[in-house]
Amino acid sequence: MKALVALSGNGVYDGSEIHESVLTLLHLNMQGIEYQCVAPNIKQYHVINHTNGEEMKESRNVLVEAARIARGDIKDLSEVSIADYDALILPGGFGAAKNFTTWAFDGPKGSVLKEIKTIILETVKLKKPILAMCMAPVVIAKSLEGSTISAKLTVGSDKEATPYEIEAISAGMESIGARAEKVSVRELTVDTEHKIITTPCYMMEASISEISEGIAKAVSALKLML
Amino acid sequence: MKALVALSGNGVYDGSEIHESVLTLLHLNMQGIEYQCVAPNIKQYHVINHTNGEEMKESRNVLVEAARIARGDIKDLSEVSIADYDALILPGGFGAAKNFTTWAFDGPKGSVLKEIKTIILETVKLKKPILAMCMAPVVIAKSLEGSTISAKLTVGSDKEATPYEIEAISAGMESIGARAEKVSVRELTVDTEHKIITTPCYMMEASISEISEGIAKAVSALKLML
Repeated sequence: MKALVALSGNGVYDGSEIHESVLTLLHLNMQGIEYQCVAPNIKQYHVINHTNGEEMKESRNVLVEAARIARGDIKDLSEVSIADYDALILPGGFGAAKNFTTWAFDGPKGSVLKEIKTIILETVKLKKPILAMCMAPVVIAKSLEGSTISAKLTVGSDKEATPYEIEAISAGMESIGARAEKVSVRELTVDTEHKIITTPCYMMEASISEISEGIAKAVSALKLML
Repeated sequence: MKALVALSGNGVYDGSEIHESVLTLLHLNMQGIEYQCVAPNIKQYHVINHTNGEEMKESRNVLVEAARIARGDIKDLSEVSIADYDALILPGGFGAAKNFTTWAFDGPKGSVLKEIKTIILETVKLKKPILAMCMAPVVIAKSLEGSTISAKLTVGSDKEATPYEIEAISAGMESIGARAEKVSVRELTVDTEHKIITTPCYMMEASISEISEGIAKAVSALKLML
């Protein structure tokens, strides 16, 4: 069993959320699932100074930065085929809404990166499971937009503390054909028909232990589908 | 109980090792110890492309990059006092040998960053525990060089697979007054007299689960000293 872990950079505000990415690798390994990290070989939308949230006058590459999380063991997303793997996993972070899609700027009317849309559609077609965390469900929603598939997805609950506009993101996902469900940081949304698992992680204000528990549960649910 | 976690950047080849840093935060949180990440506000020695190991023509700041691991919740190392915390933790990565010391280029004759030396000496003086992983024990050795303290430290075992020259690093640490011990990825070296715990982590070729187990054990040992 081997999963592809698709990263969108290295850092919550302009790439993949680092804790979610590392804890994904940890729980895959603990549950006996091998992994291969991948990322698109494209320029990041922008670079954010994580001490103050300000944009920096720099240009970085998503694949090169994501390689830091992967300790160098990473492949170009456009050079892998899901046919060679058993599952696709998308950790969260703003990279999902800035590099994989333009949701952060354009909402549900934004675009989706061709390479990630292609692999998501192929994964669904081959009936292999997908796990998406935090903001990454919007990438699934954008990829399936216009298809016959209405996936059940979550980006968190409006009953817990969150820095995000859960209502607006859920409504945005519904506007392009997904079915949005609201669940807490310790819960999952499982679309058994399409084999899509989603979980809020840092969409909610949570401790790193809670993130770890949520991902452990999500990986267990994924494993049952393999 | 609150620990300071001193980061040296964000990425194994030019900063803090990301898995070790995140798993440190996880196990501190799981064991009920609060944490504050800190890093020096200095230029990184250099920037390494983690896909191929080549140096990039860029300049990055250690504090700004480490903030990615800390999700923005980070302080300048020079603006904190260990008097306000209960323990000091140094995850590994080449940042220990490139930004905290110049060991990667100059070996044991290299220099050590004033801010990290100051806080290590103060922590030892106040008899508060220190935990150092992977390559970070060389930072302890360099900081204690010339003092009356001969700390017992490890950077791994020469009986396990490793990409590092364990013998040379151990001998180098002994040449400046430390006592080097060789232990495996699942073991710790505990200097009970000086309250210094060291563990090899990614000095050895190991899975992320083994790194997690090693750090969990090290944090437990640290907690017993609080």
